[in-house]
Parts: sequence; structure tokens; C-alpha cells
Amino acid sequence: MSTNPRIYLDFNATGPIGPAARATMAEAMVVVGNPSSIHAEGRAARDLVEQARNRVAGLVGRPREEVVFTSGGTEANRIGVEWLAAVAEQRGLPRVVASAGTDHPSLRGAVAALVARGWEQRRLAADLTGVGVVALTLVNHELGTLASLPARAGGTLVHVDAVQAAGKIALEGLAADAIAISAHKLGGPQGTGALITSVEPDGQIGEKIGDEIDAGHQERGRRPGTENTVGIAGFGAAVQAIDLAAWPAVTALGARLEEGLIALGARINGAGSPRIGGTVNAAFTGVRGESIVIALDLVGIAASTGAACTSGSTKPSPVLLAIGQTPTEAREAVRFSLGRTTTMAEIDRVLAALPPILARARR
Amino acid sequence: MSTNPRIYLDFNATGPIGPAARATMAEAMVVVGNPSSIHAEGRAARDLVEQARNRVAGLVGRPREEVVFTSGGTEANRIGVEWLAAVAEQRGLPRVVASAGTDHPSLRGAVAALVARGWEQRRLAADLTGVGVVALTLVNHELGTLASLPARAGGTLVHVDAVQAAGKIALEGLAADAIAISAHKLGGPQGTGALITSVEPDGQIGEKIGDEIDAGHQERGRRPGTENTVGIAGFGAAVQAIDLAAWPAVTALGARLEEGLIALGARINGAGSPRIGGTVNAAFTGVRGESIVIALDLVGIAASTGAACTSGSTKPSPVLLAIGQTPTEAREAVRFSLGRTTTMAEIDRVLAALPPILARARR
Repeated sequence: MSTNPRIYLDFNATGPIGPAARATMAEAMVVVGNPSSIHAEGRAARDLVEQARNRVAGLVGRPREEVVFTSGGTEANRIGVEWLAAVAEQRGLPRVVASAGTDHPSLRGAVAALVARGWEQRRLAADLTGVGVVALTLVNHELGTLASLPARAGGTLVHVDAVQAAGKIALEGLAADAIAISAHKLGGPQGTGALITSVEPDGQIGEKIGDEIDAGHQERGRRPGTENTVGIAGFGAAVQAIDLAAWPAVTALGARLEEGLIALGARINGAGSPRIGGTVNAAFTGVRGESIVIALDLVGIAASTGAACTSGSTKPSPVLLAIGQTPTEAREAVRFSLGRTTTMAEIDRVLAALPPILARARR
Repeated sequence: MSTNPRIYLDFNATGPIGPAARATMAEAMVVVGNPSSIHAEGRAARDLVEQARNRVAGLVGRPREEVVFTSGGTEANRIGVEWLAAVAEQRGLPRVVASAGTDHPSLRGAVAALVARGWEQRRLAADLTGVGVVALTLVNHELGTLASLPARAGGTLVHVDAVQAAGKIALEGLAADAIAISAHKLGGPQGTGALITSVEPDGQIGEKIGDEIDAGHQERGRRPGTENTVGIAGFGAAVQAIDLAAWPAVTALGARLEEGLIALGARINGAGSPRIGGTVNAAFTGVRGESIVIALDLVGIAASTGAACTSGSTKPSPVLLAIGQTPTEAREAVRFSLGRTTTMAEIDRVLAALPPILARARR
């Protein structure tokens, strides 16, 4: 056991709640009111929610009316894909959804729900002819690879999972009809996220879409249930604290980690593709990633084998299988994901900790 | 404008976050970890979630494995009804759902979703022959009326919306297959709730139900998405702070308010039925409830006309229409809902504030 402070390199799973967000949440906790109530207490809660909405709108450079607060990135992906599919059906677009095989489980689940309703699923390709809805991940959660948005054709609607991109790269001007983000991936709390969507169904058709999910009028009928006021307030504060100019320093630390890992014999998953930096997915031939993650944890370093929401699963990463790896290769992956609080000293400690762990694992 | 402190009598819309819950949330905010991660940081977050799960399980007297955390009461109602319907279908029960017309919009929405899938809807009655799923509200949000659970027959599955009951009356021993509760109605934060369900589908069938909603393995596959760790921790602390022995005092204050309102000429909605106490739904003939609520707000008193999630709606309360009132009568309703911090002095101030408001409104 190390007596050093622990090193957290699992920011893609979740990050610390930033100081501004914590302070804002502490203030919001003493506000008593349901944002839907019309009295002064309700209006005070509403103000907190709307201030956060302005900030999220600013992050993506969209009008505030387009922002719908959700319970997180998973729900934002689900509602976004469902919303675009409903609009696509009513516009007479093909009931065909295109996606990569490497998306986060939440986006794959949203696409699978369309398929269960009779939609055809197609692998995402440059040619969108015949595609009604695209479900695209901007930055991959396991690899840090950066996708480019397809050129749209024939009215195809595009949903973008920007969960791992928000707070790292600019999201203004994204040619997307729906964008999903999550608070806890950018310095806010778990349990809140947002869907930003510019697509409006027409007249009666819109009424119908609203009616189908009518369980409360909140968030313009797109997401029923009392808003998570404290969480949303923290989300807004975290968004305001984002400094995109700080990301290149994180990228540089990631590059240093990557060089060190390669020097230790690692191959880097996703290295052939454009990447955002800060996420290093490494594999050491003959060593299971899970063994490394457990050994690192024992010496005070938090990393992961892939998405947290499939941790403990005995299945190899579906992302790595989708990019053509064998199950054995996929099981060798270790994901290091860095954040704005990561330091060079931490990276050096990780690189120093690995050789004995690898030696033991190979024995 | 009054210089007195404001009086909050809208606890059925939302209540203050209690001191223990606030302290627990503040502590949880500095825990960095995704509850699904296997490293020490993840396990620390997992501990917070599981401690809360134990407390919620204790509240309903069920095994902890039955507790599924959701983003609130709305989602708990939706998932509960969907879950029971899926199990009912697989057990070959009739695709018939029975409910009252007086439920909260979230429960009506959940039932409407079944109807959209081809289920038949029936008005809840004593005879459950031919009914697959019952969706029942234990305590009505507008009236405070207390329902009795139906005697089950033929394997009928029962979902209970206990959102307005939790924290007020004992929930142990409820003959329900699924129970929905919400944190912010019992001293916890908005944005978290729980579904407690004892129904397990069988073998392969269970796999199938799980697969249909597979967007992440959290909460045993029943509610995907990273858990709202801070909110859930606060929820658990609020549950632990519940003191059912304190509720009769609230009931007594409600009775005093009710007497005073009757003396001012009010009729009391729901008075003919068993009620939980603490919720007083009054109506003054010839005066719109909304006018009273706005006038009370101006003198520092928060009340409502009905459910917060339909505030601002121009439609009369669907609950009051369902119990046979005319739209005009329904629009006269004012709901006062009390909580554990309500005092006799507050009740007296409300009763003193009303006569001039009523006089002005009637002029």
C-alpha cells in the first residue's frame, strides 16, 4: 500500500465535482421550492434551473429553449434518439438508423430500442442515402477517438452523443439536430445531463408527440418529472467553470503517459485514428487489463478496463471487438483517462508503478 | 408585502431538504467515483449508494435487493408499471390495467403508455377479475385521501404510488408488487426516487426483459445510467430522519386549518373519504383558487391549486373533475399541504390573512 495520495485516472468514468459546482449546490440545497410552482419559493427554484439552462445553452451555442434537462447522459441519449426518430417518422424519412459499433452502452441501447420498434439498423458510413436518423458519438469513451460529423443528405436527422467531448472541445456550430451531454463528465454531479435539440415537430404532429409521453409538463413535455434542482444548479456552475484553453495541457500529459506506456511495451488502442487526447487506452500482450487495474488500485492508482457501466462484466469490451480485436486482445485493455487536475508527477508515478506490476502479472 | 418570514404550505409539491440530508450530501460531494467502478474511489461511491439502499429498504420493510434507484417518483411510476406489465404479459395475465381517475400525472402517463401499447384500461373497482395490473395511488397528491389496497385475485400485479404516503404513514407490509417513492417529498433532494419491486420474471423471460432496456447494467439492469450518488446519499439520510410519530401533530395542525377554513365558508374537497391529514384542499364558492394562491403569495404564504407539475395550466384539476366536480368548482380549489416544520402560529396567520383576500376577490 502506498502512503502517497491516490491518483485518479478514470475521469471518463466520472470526475470530481468542482469547487464552484459544490458551492452552488450547497446554496441550492436551502432553496425550498418546486420549479413548477408559481409562488415565490417555486420561482426561486425555477431561477436556479433557468440560470443553468442559459449556461448549458452557451456551451453548445444554441438558444436556451433547446435545452432539456435530463437525469444524465443515458437519458439524454435515449430521449434524443427517440425524439429524432419520432420526428423522422412523421416527416416520412426512412425508418433506418445508422450508428457505429463503438458507441457507449446508453447510445447502443437507444438505437436497440428503435430496432425493437421495427427500425432497420445500418453501420454508419459516409453515404447517408436512405438513413432517417444517425446516432453518432463525438468522442469515444474508451478510446478518446474523435468522430467527424457526416455530411447530411435528404433530411437525415443527426443525434450526437457529446458526453465525452463537452468540456474538452468546442461544441458550438456542431451540425447536429440533438446533442447529449452529462454533468458528471465535466465537473458537475452525477444524476443530471442535458439534451439540446433544435428539431421541432409540426403543429398537430407535435401535439401528438407530446401526448405520447405526457406524464408531466416539465421541460416542455420532453422530460417529465420534477427537475433535479440542486444537481442542475451544480451542472450550470460546472459548465460556467469550463476552460477549454486548459485542455491542451491535459492532452500533453496524456501524450507523455502514452510515450511511457509504449516504452514499457504497450500497444495503444485507437492510435490510428484522430483522438482528443487525455484518454490513453493501452494493452500489454499476455496481461489481462483487469489484473493491471486491480494491481494499480492496490498501489493507489485508479484506472479502468473500459466503461464503468460494464465494469465487473466478464465480457470483453464491445468497443474493442467492434474495431476488430479478438476477445483476448480486448481483455488486455487498460484505460487511463486524465482530467484538469492531473499532474506530471502523477503520470510519472503511474509509469514507475507499472513495471513491477507487469512483471508479476507475466510470471 | 409582509415583513414576517414566509409560510410554506406546499409540502406536497416539494419540501425542504432536511439538515441531515444536507450534511450527507455535502460529504458525498467530495467523494470522487462512479459507483460502477471497481477501484477504491468507485467502491466509496458504491458504499454511499448501498447505505441509502439499506435505508430505503428499511422504510418499506423489504429486502435491499428489491430497491431500484430512479431519477424520481415519475420515473419510479413509469418503470414500475412497465415492469409489472412486462411480467404480466409473460405470465399470460390479461392485458388489462385498472386505475382510478385521480392519480398523479406521472402515474396516469405510465398507464397511458400501456394503453398506447394495446392494453385495455379499466376503472379500478373491488373486483379485479380480468385485470393484469393495478396502478394505485396510496395517498392522493391533491386531496390527501387514503386508498385501501384491493384484495388481489388471479395473480393480478399491483403497483402502488406511495410518493405522498412515504414519511407520513408506515409502508411495511403493503400488499404491493411494486412501490414508487420520491426523495423530495420526504426531506430529500429533487431528482431521486426509488422503485421497490418484489416481482421477478422467470429465467429466460427475465433475460429478455433485461435485454429490452439494456443501456447499462446499473440497478440490476432496471434503470440504466450512472447513479445520482449525491442525491441518493441525501435520500438515504432523509429516510433515516423520518419520524412517523411526528405525523399526528401535522395532522392536528391540518385539522385546525380545516376548521378555520370551514368557518370562513370553505367546502373541503375529499372530506367524505378517509384522509391522511396534513393536506387540506379547500374551495370558496365564486372565487378562483388561482386568485387566492397569488394573493397569498403576495402576503408571504405559499400554497397551490393542485399538482405543481400542472401549475400554470389553464385546465382545471383532473383529480377534481374525476371525483365529479364541474370545471368551475374544480377551479375554486386551493391546496394547503403541511409538513413537519409547520407551526400553529403559521396556521393562525394563514387563517387571518384569508378574509381580506376573499373579500377582495368577491368584490
